[in-house]
Amino acid sequence: MSTETPAYDALSATYTRLHRLGHLQSIASWDQAANMPPKGNEARAAAMSEMAALLHRLRTDPAMQAQITRAAGEPLSLLQQANLREIRRDWLASNALPESLVQRQSMATARCEHAWRAQRSANDWAGFLENFRPVLALAREEAALLSDETGLSRYDALMDRFEPGMTSARLRQIFGDVRQWLPALIRRVLDKQSGEPVIQPVGPFAVEAQRHLCERTMRLLGFDFEAGRLDVSTHPFCGGVPEDVRMTTRFREDNFLSSLMGTIHETGHGRYEQNLPRGLVGQPVGQARSMALHESQSLSFEMQLGSHPGFVAHLAPMLAEAFGAQAAFEPQNLQRLLTRVTAGTIRVDADEVTYAAHVILRYEIERPLIEGEIEAEDIPARWDAAMMELLGVDTRGNFRDGPLQDVHWPSGMFGYFPCYSLGAMYSAQWFAAMRRSMPDLDTRIAAGDLGAVFDWLRDKVWSQASLWQTDELTMRASGEVLNPAHFRAHLEQRYLG
Amino acid sequence: MSTETPAYDALSATYTRLHRLGHLQSIASWDQAANMPPKGNEARAAAMSEMAALLHRLRTDPAMQAQITRAAGEPLSLLQQANLREIRRDWLASNALPESLVQRQSMATARCEHAWRAQRSANDWAGFLENFRPVLALAREEAALLSDETGLSRYDALMDRFEPGMTSARLRQIFGDVRQWLPALIRRVLDKQSGEPVIQPVGPFAVEAQRHLCERTMRLLGFDFEAGRLDVSTHPFCGGVPEDVRMTTRFREDNFLSSLMGTIHETGHGRYEQNLPRGLVGQPVGQARSMALHESQSLSFEMQLGSHPGFVAHLAPMLAEAFGAQAAFEPQNLQRLLTRVTAGTIRVDADEVTYAAHVILRYEIERPLIEGEIEAEDIPARWDAAMMELLGVDTRGNFRDGPLQDVHWPSGMFGYFPCYSLGAMYSAQWFAAMRRSMPDLDTRIAAGDLGAVFDWLRDKVWSQASLWQTDELTMRASGEVLNPAHFRAHLEQRYLG
Repeated sequence: MSTETPAYDALSATYTRLHRLGHLQSIASWDQAANMPPKGNEARAAAMSEMAALLHRLRTDPAMQAQITRAAGEPLSLLQQANLREIRRDWLASNALPESLVQRQSMATARCEHAWRAQRSANDWAGFLENFRPVLALAREEAALLSDETGLSRYDALMDRFEPGMTSARLRQIFGDVRQWLPALIRRVLDKQSGEPVIQPVGPFAVEAQRHLCERTMRLLGFDFEAGRLDVSTHPFCGGVPEDVRMTTRFREDNFLSSLMGTIHETGHGRYEQNLPRGLVGQPVGQARSMALHESQSLSFEMQLGSHPGFVAHLAPMLAEAFGAQAAFEPQNLQRLLTRVTAGTIRVDADEVTYAAHVILRYEIERPLIEGEIEAEDIPARWDAAMMELLGVDTRGNFRDGPLQDVHWPSGMFGYFPCYSLGAMYSAQWFAAMRRSMPDLDTRIAAGDLGAVFDWLRDKVWSQASLWQTDELTMRASGEVLNPAHFRAHLEQRYLG
Repeated sequence: MSTETPAYDALSATYTRLHRLGHLQSIASWDQAANMPPKGNEARAAAMSEMAALLHRLRTDPAMQAQITRAAGEPLSLLQQANLREIRRDWLASNALPESLVQRQSMATARCEHAWRAQRSANDWAGFLENFRPVLALAREEAALLSDETGLSRYDALMDRFEPGMTSARLRQIFGDVRQWLPALIRRVLDKQSGEPVIQPVGPFAVEAQRHLCERTMRLLGFDFEAGRLDVSTHPFCGGVPEDVRMTTRFREDNFLSSLMGTIHETGHGRYEQNLPRGLVGQPVGQARSMALHESQSLSFEMQLGSHPGFVAHLAPMLAEAFGAQAAFEPQNLQRLLTRVTAGTIRVDADEVTYAAHVILRYEIERPLIEGEIEAEDIPARWDAAMMELLGVDTRGNFRDGPLQDVHWPSGMFGYFPCYSLGAMYSAQWFAAMRRSMPDLDTRIAAGDLGAVFDWLRDKVWSQASLWQTDELTMRASGEVLNPAHFRAHLEQRYLG
């Protein structure tokens, strides 16, 4: 018996194997969005579903339960203990779901997401509903099983997969707080900005020049092109594996700013992945801590840094080099462009101030949708009402720029949206902490020295992976748990200061 | 017992599963050549190796042996009997190899092939040998095991994976025949062509225009872009899955013809795959019959059709549209360019007449290499001597354009080279048979009606998949088994007629 492989080592080997097979799934998933021709979809969906079932089977091997129990009694380092904690979390979540459900979900979401790409352009809500109903039904089935397993509410059980520790109760407080001051803040900002003229850039902006500008900006932000790529897909994302990060963007000849800022956003995700501790890649403890923390990195790049006046002063001449000099590219005007607040329909084009309204709207639809309080048919009316209430925008009949705009629901990703706004709050908290420890931070950024920011993020977030639970990581990084006051202070300083 | 799943159905389900998981491996393999950044290689090699081992484990499940025996006693259709025959073949080949060998091979070849990409440019034979020795050692280990299993010689056992039924003894006859008449034919053609001036195209040829021309030509040749793509890799290939064919080419600004003709070549492979019977995809009986038959399709496209005067007359104006009018693009001159015979160093750039010499040279090295009659260190001397003897070309010290030029050896693919020349012979035989049944074939091609060619190939080859063994398929298609006289007649007619 004493020569037996320690249970911890066996578990660790299983996760290495899962990581290796998952690598192929990640690359195929990126390919599906960036390359795959339409007739390839059915075979790809079958292949992805087969792999999802296989990985699920490996994750739910009954032998693991005994190994987890045995490993808890083995002499483990702090790191190994943290890994075992995350392994147990993964095991509990995986075992709540039967393989047949995983396979049906993979099939249904692949079909729905693929059809959605055309249905969105065609504004075809009725067609979408056909494929979406089974996706929702399966998500509710999953939520019920996870709820039984964890004791959380159904929606919270889904959210827990992305943001462990976060609950609807805590969100009611946080989003409730935001709902109190956000509408007034938006009005004040719109009022202030109405007196600040802004010059719009004049296109067209050649796609090749945009691509080059995006890659140059990614290099400035430290993205390692020897270990990743930038490609094009309908809905930008950051995929692949930590060793080979696949970022995507989309280009429009009439607007380069949205793809540039989107690329800066995804670069934050990419650098988090590229800088996870390499020796732990594949182990649960080596993974990014949570989706809100992931968003806190993309938003640190896009918002805290990307719209920082000091950074903008460095970006401005790069735009002139890419597209020729324009009055719109003068630093002060560029800064105004990047911080322009508009009550619009599209979440991914939304500014830093109104973005939270888009998230709260989605949260207020998907939570009751999963809890069974409303049905898929009820989405458009809820959407239209909330858009009017929160942003004063009329979206009736415009499904394309309404509930069909995001990939999340067609791909069955419920419980994710809150992470975006939580990420914005964390990123404001990170920069507040940086300024406390580096009072000259803004001077450094203005001097083009971004190293201090990257070093702080690497030290406090990237290198920590999942060693600590979220509140503990946040305490260690910033001296307190999530505190939305930093987000409000940031918006007031930047937009009304 | 009577309610048990028929053994045949269980086997069939296993192969569907293998096809689905193999789909992800194929796409990742294409990605490795077409997209992957350098630092991704180690993780990718580990992932591919893990998957290779998994597929091997599924293929060698001991339960299959009993299923194969039981299925033989079940009432099966002709198609199912053929599938069972191919399943048995696959099972025997797979079970000759232990999983550890498969995994070591996958690791060693991924490493060797990746390093080779840089080593080839650097003409670094010594560096290449370091990685190649383990690849060769593992190939010999595999050959020995397959030889024990099949009773074939070691080299024949490797060749049998690509070209079932072909042996060194048969090749000695076929290549021996070619060796007798080829050198004299080359001399006569060179002599004849020395009196026929040819105008070279004047570059540079913009890569974007080349890409557009290649895609247009692929469309003309019936490639379905809704079910496939064209991308760029160092060594062109046709990969992916039948439902999503991934072709690659490479572009050089100073020479568009090699990439255009390479693309026409790969399009032949691509159409074979795209037109395999869709209901049988994934089953062994639904796969392309053999590699020589695969090459017979690429060479039907590239040589029989691509250099056909009637086809060339249609290609000529497309070149003028792509790059502007040039004297070189006049049909008669273009035809001379495409049929120009040169004793050169590079196989993939070789013309239809000297190509067989390149293949015979490689066959005469890799056969004794696998049989243990020579070592990796002996390759350059053998190479140099054979190049001098067969083509009068001095390759001493030029490893880049010598034994480092092909991806086959670094990727451990021994026994494949003969298929190229066998394919050329089959393609000549197909067109001879077409002309017998359609005496106006050349007039049709000249009129731009390629449908007759595609219909014949679809009917006789593509749709037949692996229903018949090679000799049987060849008999049914052309009324005789492989007969190299058609190849000789084709070369004499086209080059001396």
